[in-house]
Amino acid sequence: MLTPELVSYLGELLGTAILILLGNGVVANMLLAKTKGNGNGLMPIAVAWAVAVFVGVFVTAPMSGAHLNPAVTLGLAVVGKFSWLLVPGYVVAQIAGAFLGQALVVLSYRDHYAATEDTGLVLATFSTDPAIPNHLSNILTEAIGTFVLVFAVLYITGPKFGDAPGSLGALDALPVALVVLGIGLSLGGPTGYAINPARDLGPRIAHALLPLANKGGSNWAYSWVPVVGPIIGALVAAGLWHVVPVAL
Amino acid sequence: MLTPELVSYLGELLGTAILILLGNGVVANMLLAKTKGNGNGLMPIAVAWAVAVFVGVFVTAPMSGAHLNPAVTLGLAVVGKFSWLLVPGYVVAQIAGAFLGQALVVLSYRDHYAATEDTGLVLATFSTDPAIPNHLSNILTEAIGTFVLVFAVLYITGPKFGDAPGSLGALDALPVALVVLGIGLSLGGPTGYAINPARDLGPRIAHALLPLANKGGSNWAYSWVPVVGPIIGALVAAGLWHVVPVAL
Amino acid sequence: MLTPELVSYLGELLGTAILILLGNGVVANMLLAKTKGNGNGLMPIAVAWAVAVFVGVFVTAPMSGAHLNPAVTLGLAVVGKFSWLLVPGYVVAQIAGAFLGQALVVLSYRDHYAATEDTGLVLATFSTDPAIPNHLSNILTEAIGTFVLVFAVLYITGPKFGDAPGSLGALDALPVALVVLGIGLSLGGPTGYAINPARDLGPRIAHALLPLANKGGSNWAYSWVPVVGPIIGALVAAGLWHVVPVAL
Amino acid sequence: MLTPELVSYLGELLGTAILILLGNGVVANMLLAKTKGNGNGLMPIAVAWAVAVFVGVFVTAPMSGAHLNPAVTLGLAVVGKFSWLLVPGYVVAQIAGAFLGQALVVLSYRDHYAATEDTGLVLATFSTDPAIPNHLSNILTEAIGTFVLVFAVLYITGPKFGDAPGSLGALDALPVALVVLGIGLSLGGPTGYAINPARDLGPRIAHALLPLANKGGSNWAYSWVPVVGPIIGALVAAGLWHVVPVAL
Repeated sequence: MLTPELVSYLGELLGTAILILLGNGVVANMLLAKTKGNGNGLMPIAVAWAVAVFVGVFVTAPMSGAHLNPAVTLGLAVVGKFSWLLVPGYVVAQIAGAFLGQALVVLSYRDHYAATEDTGLVLATFSTDPAIPNHLSNILTEAIGTFVLVFAVLYITGPKFGDAPGSLGALDALPVALVVLGIGLSLGGPTGYAINPARDLGPRIAHALLPLANKGGSNWAYSWVPVVGPIIGALVAAGLWHVVPVAL
Repeated sequence: MLTPELVSYLGELLGTAILILLGNGVVANMLLAKTKGNGNGLMPIAVAWAVAVFVGVFVTAPMSGAHLNPAVTLGLAVVGKFSWLLVPGYVVAQIAGAFLGQALVVLSYRDHYAATEDTGLVLATFSTDPAIPNHLSNILTEAIGTFVLVFAVLYITGPKFGDAPGSLGALDALPVALVVLGIGLSLGGPTGYAINPARDLGPRIAHALLPLANKGGSNWAYSWVPVVGPIIGALVAAGLWHVVPVAL
Repeated sequence: MLTPELVSYLGELLGTAILILLGNGVVANMLLAKTKGNGNGLMPIAVAWAVAVFVGVFVTAPMSGAHLNPAVTLGLAVVGKFSWLLVPGYVVAQIAGAFLGQALVVLSYRDHYAATEDTGLVLATFSTDPAIPNHLSNILTEAIGTFVLVFAVLYITGPKFGDAPGSLGALDALPVALVVLGIGLSLGGPTGYAINPARDLGPRIAHALLPLANKGGSNWAYSWVPVVGPIIGALVAAGLWHVVPVAL
Repeated sequence: MLTPELVSYLGELLGTAILILLGNGVVANMLLAKTKGNGNGLMPIAVAWAVAVFVGVFVTAPMSGAHLNPAVTLGLAVVGKFSWLLVPGYVVAQIAGAFLGQALVVLSYRDHYAATEDTGLVLATFSTDPAIPNHLSNILTEAIGTFVLVFAVLYITGPKFGDAPGSLGALDALPVALVVLGIGLSLGGPTGYAINPARDLGPRIAHALLPLANKGGSNWAYSWVPVVGPIIGALVAAGLWHVVPVAL
């Protein structure tokens, strides 16, 4: 028999797996050799990530409230909408789900991974990297993008919308997806918008562990940036939430 | 006088015809000679297929619950949401509807089919083919894509949404269309995402039977892959549905 | 004091003007010299026409039921959802509105019309023309596209949705816009999808009458095709509506 | 303790900051050197501006009614839906919010601003400029675009939708965003569619004041056009609103 806690962890695992499967799936389609989508540009990537958020949230909202992102979980806990007791389980489930989703990307595109010799392109279908490496700037960009996401989620999960506090409902899937579409198109230019520690870390672990024909390094030197930047953005969003009148 | 069963078969036929007319219509617009859309890329194809799902579901939901896909019908039957007695009629109607929709594509683009000498392009406006032929990999990709579709549909048709079990309603048209948009952009790279045996088989039969100026072979050697892959994906989705708490 | 009839005619005029302003506006943006959108492809055109439908329907639905298209008005009248007495006024208002909307396109892009020497491109920002001229094929394509539109509208205006018969409501704006997006991407390849006699005829009259620096002929030889094709499509949709169970 | 007036001014400041952050963010992504989106075309810009409107309206609607645009505030005041007493505070907050949002764009893309030597491209990520400079034509285009926006907003904020007069609600975010998408694609060709004095003026002030490595002039000679044009458009929309039956 599954307890409610286990159901919610399962929801986070499943939802984050769908998020990464559809999200990094499109990157694989654009970048790997011989795919039908090879060479297409920014628009399909940004749209597909937004749809990935939509599907992940829509399907798992009844199970876990569909955070799918440690920064979202953290922001909700800081403002008191979500129990700190559940935070560790949510974060572990999100990272594990991201790993699982990435494994399904690798299975879906297995012959195309084998056909792609550029190890940098292979890594790009797992985790983000900056256009201009600069830790301070990259953290700033990730923090600003995550701020927009978490601040919007704090409003969307407000009492006005009738959800349980700390939960996204199925009807919230479209607004959240549009927020992510906007962040992707508008703030994704410098760092590729991780805005989610699990989205970057889970697949990077998968890159290190999974067998791949053309595998270079996993760029661990950058790996803490898409963790720290989103955490800062979530904390700033939670702080501003206390300043603006939350009862609205 | 039409019985309810006949109404539902008619709905599946009509809806699948609209699905294929708008879905393969965009492929014809992109690939056939001298069209206004010739040479455009992935984005219009993925968007138009999603819209094709939207229109097909929206219009025929009141008649048949808008499965429009034998994999969906199978998944719903396996989990007990849809009567096995209706499955054969649904599947036949879906394949016949796909044939009819393809015939309307050929009529709509008749001069452009006549102007297109590349028989491979002509076949691509009917049925899918793999970027890298490999039966095992291609089945895997089709199964994973169909798993996402059917698993999402099982949730969308859950008791939470107030639909009759086993039916999509008009309000479900947008979420299902977004799911298909995501699958198309993210998992369509290796095989062109049939994720629907009727979508591939009906037009392939049409390719074999309809008179066409520049017609090559119908690639029957591949034809079983986009049937078997989606069936596997539907069965896995139905199985997982029994593991996760269905009452949610 | 405005009578209800005059209000509805005013609504059709206003809504069709908005439809053409946003619809042919994007064609001007893509085709005229020195615009910021020059040279962009199919996707912006199809999306903007769909949005044009959305805005036109959304704004004028409370006034007239937002037909904005003689083929829609005809289809609704044939199935008995709309009074034949209002049809002439609706059609006149739609054509006049299309003329007005086109005049606003010309005003918005006046310097770009002056800078565009290719008279074929100028005409393309007013009315449709076929990729491969062939009256029979072109009529067939227009009829099939209009069939999809009118058949969908007949369902959308059904009793199930609580609208007045023969009217689109504001909540119908999105589904109708998506139907037009699908038709544009998938069936627009051969003729540029007029699927609306007023959309083609009103701007063509404007092309003949308005002063333009670089004006060639108005291609009246083709002008009857995007009138007759849509009428045929509307009649077939209305006929099929009587066959399928309308009470659903 | 925040008074209701201060809450609404804060809402306008915050919402307009989000609007400009996501709106000019995408321009920075497309135009600045070495970004991941460099060289992409019209579609991402128009989509991201529409999403920027969506997020800004959605998040701040409960605080201020989400005008985010002096032309909208003016139009609502002229037709009597919004108190003239609040107009100055709204406009100041909108311009200040636009300045703030632009500052966040500069922070998000700081290394890319440093890497971009073309001062014209840098200015284009702040404010609009015409494709063909001609004050009369440019004012006309801005007025027509703003007319469409404000006229649509006057309907959307009508009694029919149950909002407070003069306010946009969260459910209005999608229709307004689609209106802006249509204006951007269809009427943005000549002037880049400011259609909002604060959107142009706030970032232009930021351009003049903020330190930037590669900064040319701020083109103040054009700066009054995207102020006067939108004001004219808003007044015409408000005037027409009095002619058409407002009780609908």
